[in-house]
Amino acid sequence: MPKKNIAIIGATGFTGSELVRILHLHPEVNISLITSESRAGEKFSDVHPFFRGIVDQQLYSVNDLDQFEVDLAFLALPHGVSMEYVEKFDGHSFPIVDLSGDYRLNNPETYEAWYNKKHSFTKAFEYAAYGIPELYRDKIKKARLVANPGCYPTSVILGAAPLIDSGLVHTDRIISDSKSGITGAGVKAKTVNHYSNVNDNFKAYGIKTHRHSIEIQENFERLGDTEVKVQFTPHLLPIDRGILSTIYLQPKSNITEGKIKEIYEDFYKDGPFIRLLDQAPAVKNVRGTNYCDIYTTYDERTNNIMVFSAIDNLVKGAAGQAVQNMNLLFGWNEALGLNQIPLCP
Amino acid sequence: MPKKNIAIIGATGFTGSELVRILHLHPEVNISLITSESRAGEKFSDVHPFFRGIVDQQLYSVNDLDQFEVDLAFLALPHGVSMEYVEKFDGHSFPIVDLSGDYRLNNPETYEAWYNKKHSFTKAFEYAAYGIPELYRDKIKKARLVANPGCYPTSVILGAAPLIDSGLVHTDRIISDSKSGITGAGVKAKTVNHYSNVNDNFKAYGIKTHRHSIEIQENFERLGDTEVKVQFTPHLLPIDRGILSTIYLQPKSNITEGKIKEIYEDFYKDGPFIRLLDQAPAVKNVRGTNYCDIYTTYDERTNNIMVFSAIDNLVKGAAGQAVQNMNLLFGWNEALGLNQIPLCP
Amino acid sequence: MPKKNIAIIGATGFTGSELVRILHLHPEVNISLITSESRAGEKFSDVHPFFRGIVDQQLYSVNDLDQFEVDLAFLALPHGVSMEYVEKFDGHSFPIVDLSGDYRLNNPETYEAWYNKKHSFTKAFEYAAYGIPELYRDKIKKARLVANPGCYPTSVILGAAPLIDSGLVHTDRIISDSKSGITGAGVKAKTVNHYSNVNDNFKAYGIKTHRHSIEIQENFERLGDTEVKVQFTPHLLPIDRGILSTIYLQPKSNITEGKIKEIYEDFYKDGPFIRLLDQAPAVKNVRGTNYCDIYTTYDERTNNIMVFSAIDNLVKGAAGQAVQNMNLLFGWNEALGLNQIPLCP
Amino acid sequence: MPKKNIAIIGATGFTGSELVRILHLHPEVNISLITSESRAGEKFSDVHPFFRGIVDQQLYSVNDLDQFEVDLAFLALPHGVSMEYVEKFDGHSFPIVDLSGDYRLNNPETYEAWYNKKHSFTKAFEYAAYGIPELYRDKIKKARLVANPGCYPTSVILGAAPLIDSGLVHTDRIISDSKSGITGAGVKAKTVNHYSNVNDNFKAYGIKTHRHSIEIQENFERLGDTEVKVQFTPHLLPIDRGILSTIYLQPKSNITEGKIKEIYEDFYKDGPFIRLLDQAPAVKNVRGTNYCDIYTTYDERTNNIMVFSAIDNLVKGAAGQAVQNMNLLFGWNEALGLNQIPLCP
Repeated sequence: MPKKNIAIIGATGFTGSELVRILHLHPEVNISLITSESRAGEKFSDVHPFFRGIVDQQLYSVNDLDQFEVDLAFLALPHGVSMEYVEKFDGHSFPIVDLSGDYRLNNPETYEAWYNKKHSFTKAFEYAAYGIPELYRDKIKKARLVANPGCYPTSVILGAAPLIDSGLVHTDRIISDSKSGITGAGVKAKTVNHYSNVNDNFKAYGIKTHRHSIEIQENFERLGDTEVKVQFTPHLLPIDRGILSTIYLQPKSNITEGKIKEIYEDFYKDGPFIRLLDQAPAVKNVRGTNYCDIYTTYDERTNNIMVFSAIDNLVKGAAGQAVQNMNLLFGWNEALGLNQIPLCP
Repeated sequence: MPKKNIAIIGATGFTGSELVRILHLHPEVNISLITSESRAGEKFSDVHPFFRGIVDQQLYSVNDLDQFEVDLAFLALPHGVSMEYVEKFDGHSFPIVDLSGDYRLNNPETYEAWYNKKHSFTKAFEYAAYGIPELYRDKIKKARLVANPGCYPTSVILGAAPLIDSGLVHTDRIISDSKSGITGAGVKAKTVNHYSNVNDNFKAYGIKTHRHSIEIQENFERLGDTEVKVQFTPHLLPIDRGILSTIYLQPKSNITEGKIKEIYEDFYKDGPFIRLLDQAPAVKNVRGTNYCDIYTTYDERTNNIMVFSAIDNLVKGAAGQAVQNMNLLFGWNEALGLNQIPLCP
Repeated sequence: MPKKNIAIIGATGFTGSELVRILHLHPEVNISLITSESRAGEKFSDVHPFFRGIVDQQLYSVNDLDQFEVDLAFLALPHGVSMEYVEKFDGHSFPIVDLSGDYRLNNPETYEAWYNKKHSFTKAFEYAAYGIPELYRDKIKKARLVANPGCYPTSVILGAAPLIDSGLVHTDRIISDSKSGITGAGVKAKTVNHYSNVNDNFKAYGIKTHRHSIEIQENFERLGDTEVKVQFTPHLLPIDRGILSTIYLQPKSNITEGKIKEIYEDFYKDGPFIRLLDQAPAVKNVRGTNYCDIYTTYDERTNNIMVFSAIDNLVKGAAGQAVQNMNLLFGWNEALGLNQIPLCP
Repeated sequence: MPKKNIAIIGATGFTGSELVRILHLHPEVNISLITSESRAGEKFSDVHPFFRGIVDQQLYSVNDLDQFEVDLAFLALPHGVSMEYVEKFDGHSFPIVDLSGDYRLNNPETYEAWYNKKHSFTKAFEYAAYGIPELYRDKIKKARLVANPGCYPTSVILGAAPLIDSGLVHTDRIISDSKSGITGAGVKAKTVNHYSNVNDNFKAYGIKTHRHSIEIQENFERLGDTEVKVQFTPHLLPIDRGILSTIYLQPKSNITEGKIKEIYEDFYKDGPFIRLLDQAPAVKNVRGTNYCDIYTTYDERTNNIMVFSAIDNLVKGAAGQAVQNMNLLFGWNEALGLNQIPLCP
C-alpha cells in the first residue's frame, strides 16, 4: 500500500518541527509538503539546523499546495491564523488536524469571549471533533477536522476524566495547579522566554483568565453531564518541555484509593499512552514521547483526591497527539510511529 | 557598644554558609566561633571555597566552645542532632536559635509521631518559641530557645496567616501546592539531588506525609483557634533556591479582593520583609534576600481565594529568618543586617 | 533471518540505559539479557522508571548468562571491573563491545601508568580493536573485542583526525579545550554532580592529568605516524548531555579554509554520522543522536586552524557508537537502528 | 562629608540594574538620578520589580539632568548611543564612567574598523582612560572619562597581564578560549537569548571576529610593548552570569610553576579583588561580586602555561568595575561598597 502524503502547514514553530521529527520516521507516511510563508524557498533544515542531513526538503508557500499530493494536512499555526486555512482548504477532500485553539471550544461565541477575537470561519465548528483519542476515539475517526487539544487541557483532562466520568466527585470545586516548560510560549523571542527571566525562576501567570480554563471545563461538562467549575492555575517552569498538573478533587461520598485505581485502569484499558504509576510522575520520564503518566492518591485525613499527570507539552500536548489523531483518521493503530522512548536524562 | 559574639554550630551545610554570608556583614555582631566536628582544624573557606579571602577563620570542635565569647548560638544542624546540642548548652546563659525541626512542633508526642524518632531532650519544648517574627514577635524577644521555622511552613504560614487570623475562611479545606528549589534537600550528595535527576525535571514528593504539613497546621490552629486541615503538596523545582506556594482557600461568606488586600496590609503593617504585590511573585525576585513576596486574588467564578507566596528557602526560609530572630533577641531593629538586594538575574 | 541476541552487562548506569533505549528499537536485535549484580531480580524499569511499559524485563546476575542466547555482549561497567568480565567471557564465542576504558590504550603499561591501577587481564589487548568506525572500520569488523572510545576522545579525534592524517599541521602543539555535560561523571551521586555544584556553574577539571589525554594522543600518533603532544583541558557544563571540543592547530605551511574543508569532506565521505557544517555546532543539535557535528575554520590573522566538534557524550560518545560497532561486527549497515533525530529543544 | 550624587544614565538594562544594586548600599553615594528615555515617569521598580520597596524612585529623561545634583555619571547605554551622551555632557564638570564600548579602543579608526560604525564624537578619545584599575590605577584617578572595559577583556586581560608584563611568554600565539553566561547578550529579547536556545545548549560564536579581540590585543600590546596576536574564541554558557577564560600561553624559555605564581602574587599585591587560587576557579564562586579568581599552571609535558580566570560579567565585567573606577575618581578606597559575598549556591 502506498504511503499517505502529508502536508505540514507552518514550519517555523516548535509544533512544526516536532511534527516533522515524528512523521519523518513514521512507517506509513511521506511528508510531501512543508510550508512557511516567511521562509519559503529555504530548506527546512535552514530553519531548524538540527535536521541538517535528515530533513533538508524545501519549504513552499501554501499557494503551491495544489502541486503536491496531500492526503492529510496538519495546521501548525497560531490561533486566529489557523481558521483562515481551514476556510481555504474547505473545498479540498483531505482531512485537517488543526493544532491551534481555533476549533477547540464548543461554539464561536465561547471562542470569541475567551480569545477576545472575532471568529472568521464559524461553519467548521459543525464538523470539528475535539482530538483527545482516549475520550473521543470514534468521533475522531470520522471527522473532517480535528481540533487538537491544548497542552494544559490534555494533561488536566486525561488526569481527571475517569473521576469526572465516574460521577463520584464534586465537579464544582476542582483545582488544577499546573506547571509547564517554556516551549509552551512559542518559538518567537519575547520577554517571557528570555533565558534570564526563566532560568532559576518560577511563577504563576494567567491566573483566573487562561483560555485553557474553559477548554478543560467544557470537556468535563460533556463527560460529567453536569456544571463544572475548574480553578486552573498555570505556572512557568525553568525547563524546555513538560507539563505536570496537580489536580485536587473531593469525593461526593466515601471512597478508597483502591476504588480510584480501579476506575482509572478500567477507563484507560485501551489507551496505549496512559501509564498508571504507583508513584508521583516526573516530567523528564515522558520527555520526547506521547506518554501521559498518571498517579492517583486519596488522603483520608483531608478527604482530598489528588491526581498527578505528566506529559511532554510538545508531544502528547501537541504534535504527538496530532499524529495519534492522524492514525485514527487513516484507520491505523493509534500508536503507529509513536514508539519514541523518553530521552532521560 | 561592643559587638555581640556569635557561635555558629555546624559549618558544612547550606544554612551554615548562609548564616556566615549574612552575619559577616552584619554591623553589630562578630562571628567568634564556627564549629564542625568533621572538618575541625580546617578553614571555613576550605569547606566553602567561595569565602576565600573573605572568611578564612578556623573551624573548631564544639568541645572548644568554652574558649570563646558567645552571646548567642545558631544551631545549623540536622534534626535529631540539634536536640543534643540544646541539651549540652542547657547550662549556658546564651540564647539559642535552632534551625532544625527539633522544637518546631507543639510537643514531643507530635514530634515523635511525625519525625518517627524518639526525642531525647523534651524539657526545652517548655521554653522554645516558634520563630516567625511576623506572628510571634513578642514571644521571640523573651525566648531562651527559638525554633526557627521550616522553609515550606514559612512560605505557607506567611502566605495564609492574615486570612486564617481574620476568621473569614474555611480552615478545614486549605490546599497549599508548594514548589521548592533543591537546596532544601541539603548539601550532601544523594540520588535526589544528582544534577541529572533535577535538571529539566519536575515532580511532587512527600505527598500526604511531609513533616511540614503538621508544622503548618499547628500554626494555623493557634492563629485561628480552630481545627485546621491543610493539604500540603511539595514539589521539586530545577533551581537552587526559592519556594513558591500557591495556596487555595474558600471564604466562609461573601468576600471581595479589596477586603482581602486590606486584611493583608493591616496584618503586615509592621513587617519589613513582607512585600504585598499587585501581580504574581517570582522566586528570582527574592533570591538571596529575606523578603516574602505575596500576591492575593479572589476568583468570583469559582469562589476561591488564591495566595501566591515566594521566599528564598535559605534566607527567609532559614538563615535570614534566624538572623531576624537574633535581632529580636538582642532588642535590635529586626531588619538589621538584612538589607540584601535580590540577585536578579 | 532471526534477530541477533544481545546481552547488556551492567544495567544501572547511563550507558546501560542508553544502550537499551537504542537497542529496543533496533530492527535486527533482541535484548535477551540485561544484568545487574546489585539489582538482579528487579525489573529494568524499576531501575529506570522512564522505561515503564516499554522495557520491563527482569534483571539477572551475570552468573545466569549461560541460560540465555547471546550473540554479542556489551559491557556497560566501570573501568577496572570490565576487564574481569572480558576474562570471564574469554572462553565464549560471542564478540564483546566494552564501553569502559580498560582496553582503549595501546598496552597494559600505559594503562597502568594513566589509570594508576594494575591490569588483571592483559591478554585481551592483543585482540582488542579501538572502536571509532570512521577511522578503523575494517579492523573493527573482524575484532573479538571492541574497546569503545571515551567520550572526550571521540569528539577530539573525530574533530582533528583529517588534519592529523593530512600531515599538514604541527602535531606537537595541539590544544583541545573541551566541555562536557555532567552525565560523563556517572549516575552515582557524588559531590561533583550535586545539582547545586553544577547549576549556574562552570569550571575546568582534570587539568594536565585527565586519562583521555593519552587516549587522544595515542590515536593521533597512530594516524600521523609521528610524535604528538595534545593539551587536553576538560570543563564541566551545566547540562546533562553533550560535549563540545574547541581544537586549536597550527598549519605547517600556507593553508586555506577551502583546502581544509576539502580534506574533511574527503576523509568523511563514507561516515553517515559526520555532519560538516558551515557554522559553529551546538550540542543541543545532536542531543540523543549518534551525530558528530564539525565546523572548521582558519584565521589568517593568527595562523590558527580551529575545529569545533559536537557530540552527545552518551550516544556517539558511548552507547550509540557501541551500537555502530555492533553493526560492523554483524556485517550490517553501520547506521542501522541509529536514525534517532535530535531532541531539540 | 556629604555623600556624592550619582546619575545613572540608562536604567533598563542589566548593567543599569546592577549599578543600582551596588550603589544603593554604597556608604558614600546617593543615587540622585536614574534616566530612561523609554520608561521616564515610571518607577525604577516598575522596570525591575525585584527592587520593589528598595528602590522605587522615579525615572527621568536625561533632558531633566540639570534639575539634579550630579557629581559623577555612569553611562549604561549601548555602544553608538553612549558617544552621544559623552558629547552632550562635554560641557559639564562631572566625570563620566562609560560602560559601553565607545571609548575602549586606542583611536577612532580602530573603533570604526571593528565596530563597523562611524564614531560621532572622537574628541573624547584624548581624555579617556581604560578602566581596569589593577593596571591603570593612576591614570584612572585623574581621568574625565573612564572607558569601562568589556566583560571578556576584563577576564582575559586580568588573567594574562602579569605574564605579558613579565616578558617571559610569546605574545604572538596567545589563545583565550572564553565562555560567558547569557546576560552578556543584553536584556532585550532576541533569538539568541530565547530560553530554549540557551538551556541544555553550548556553542561558540563570534569566531575570529568578536570586537573584544582587538580590545584584548591593544591592552596586551601596551603592557608588553610588543606586537601581540590573540586568538579569542567566545562561547555561550547556559547560565545567567559568569565568564571563565581558559588562556593558553607559551614561555619563551624555561619556566616553573613557582616562578609563575610569584609573578602573579607580585603583580596583584595591591589588588583587593584578585584571588589567586591553588585550584581551578568556578564561576559560581564569584557570582554577584567584584572578584576575579585566577589559577595558573604549567604543563612540562607540552610546554604550555594555562591560566583560568573567572569573573561575574555583570560585576567585575561591568557594574562592579565601574564602581571601583568611581571610587578611584573620588579618591576613595577602591573596594568601598564592593564587599558583596558570592551568592553560592
